[in-house]
Amino acid sequence: MSFSATVLTLYPEMFPGALGHSLAGRALERGDWSLEAVQIRDFATDRHRTVDDTPAGGGAGMVLRADILAKAIDHATPDGDPRPKLLMSPRGKPLTQARVRALAAGPGAVIVCGRFEGVDQRVIDARDLEEVSIGDYILSGGEPAALVLLDAVVRLLPGVMGNDASGAEESFESGLLEHPHYTRPQDFEGRSIPEILTSGNHGRIADWRRGEAERLTAERRPDLFVAHQTEKGSKK
Amino acid sequence: MSFSATVLTLYPEMFPGALGHSLAGRALERGDWSLEAVQIRDFATDRHRTVDDTPAGGGAGMVLRADILAKAIDHATPDGDPRPKLLMSPRGKPLTQARVRALAAGPGAVIVCGRFEGVDQRVIDARDLEEVSIGDYILSGGEPAALVLLDAVVRLLPGVMGNDASGAEESFESGLLEHPHYTRPQDFEGRSIPEILTSGNHGRIADWRRGEAERLTAERRPDLFVAHQTEKGSKK
Repeated sequence: MSFSATVLTLYPEMFPGALGHSLAGRALERGDWSLEAVQIRDFATDRHRTVDDTPAGGGAGMVLRADILAKAIDHATPDGDPRPKLLMSPRGKPLTQARVRALAAGPGAVIVCGRFEGVDQRVIDARDLEEVSIGDYILSGGEPAALVLLDAVVRLLPGVMGNDASGAEESFESGLLEHPHYTRPQDFEGRSIPEILTSGNHGRIADWRRGEAERLTAERRPDLFVAHQTEKGSKK
Repeated sequence: MSFSATVLTLYPEMFPGALGHSLAGRALERGDWSLEAVQIRDFATDRHRTVDDTPAGGGAGMVLRADILAKAIDHATPDGDPRPKLLMSPRGKPLTQARVRALAAGPGAVIVCGRFEGVDQRVIDARDLEEVSIGDYILSGGEPAALVLLDAVVRLLPGVMGNDASGAEESFESGLLEHPHYTRPQDFEGRSIPEILTSGNHGRIADWRRGEAERLTAERRPDLFVAHQTEKGSKK
């Protein structure tokens, strides 16, 4: 069984979007994963195909109705569907590479994309939606976030990266940001590749890269650096 | 002058992608912003149109060449171009709503999308690229990240949201996650809208929402909650 993604959205035309090209697109064509976009509006019950209503208690914006969204979710998830049900939302738990890896190891995902002011809390509770945030900024809707989540997951599926598999992930998963990269030409506008990298001394190169990764992480992401130091300490 | 985005990529066909639909797409058609995707490969100099090479010092993956990318950047940014030059990268500074707002208030952005193992550090230094990360996970390339960044920015441009402008942003910008939302129907599978929200007492509703936002933030995002409490304290 390959990884099966179902996206519930008011904009099915946004999919596969960027995921239809490059590695993810070729993997989609090969059937290494599948993607279905379901129009939430198809589950509306009035002739205007209304999916939202004003917030109880007042305030700006519109709220996606629990009953309509529940019908869409139930349609997309037959009894016993083992896939986790995610809701892309800035209120969610921040997405991590560990969660991405866990999703990639599973049967797929049902991804609900919110729009408007939000989604009625009762459908989140009743259908046990896992709220996932890709970062601390506000998007026009959950769709760009779903594309990002699926891109991160799909590249980890068996056969997708092929020989493009790189050290990026392992480096990042060490808890440090990546060291700087260099390649030919040797001289670029008077700037040279650091000598150590052309020394052929693999031990010294590894030390240098480690040092640069630590320096960069401490400088740019003290939060990650503290976590990394703690982790290192606890392993001793 | 409307917001002008130039994306440097090996996959120009990924743009406008999701940004061609809904609010961002209509704003693009109206000319409220502009989007140009530049193929980095067009600046290669050999007949195979090579843009990458093996990493100096060894290791997996390929590195985007400084000289080729610099030519693409220079082509896209005539002398005096006031737009910030961003590089989407997991090594970058985490994107925040404050940075999104600053970008939306500016003339536009030149966005470099990396692929492969990374980008030669010398072009990052020489062209003063600002590395921006949308989250702590690894993507197949910078393109989905660029789509997310632009979506966040475009929704803030004058005229784009129209009457869809909502309280979401303000709520999030208070430093707290959003309170739960509810809308009709009053009963959903035996679950009711909390009574307070239908009481008509606006003061009590505001207090309840504030309390829920604080509870959710403390529970899900202790990092944000601590920052919020500190901020509140310092304003007293």
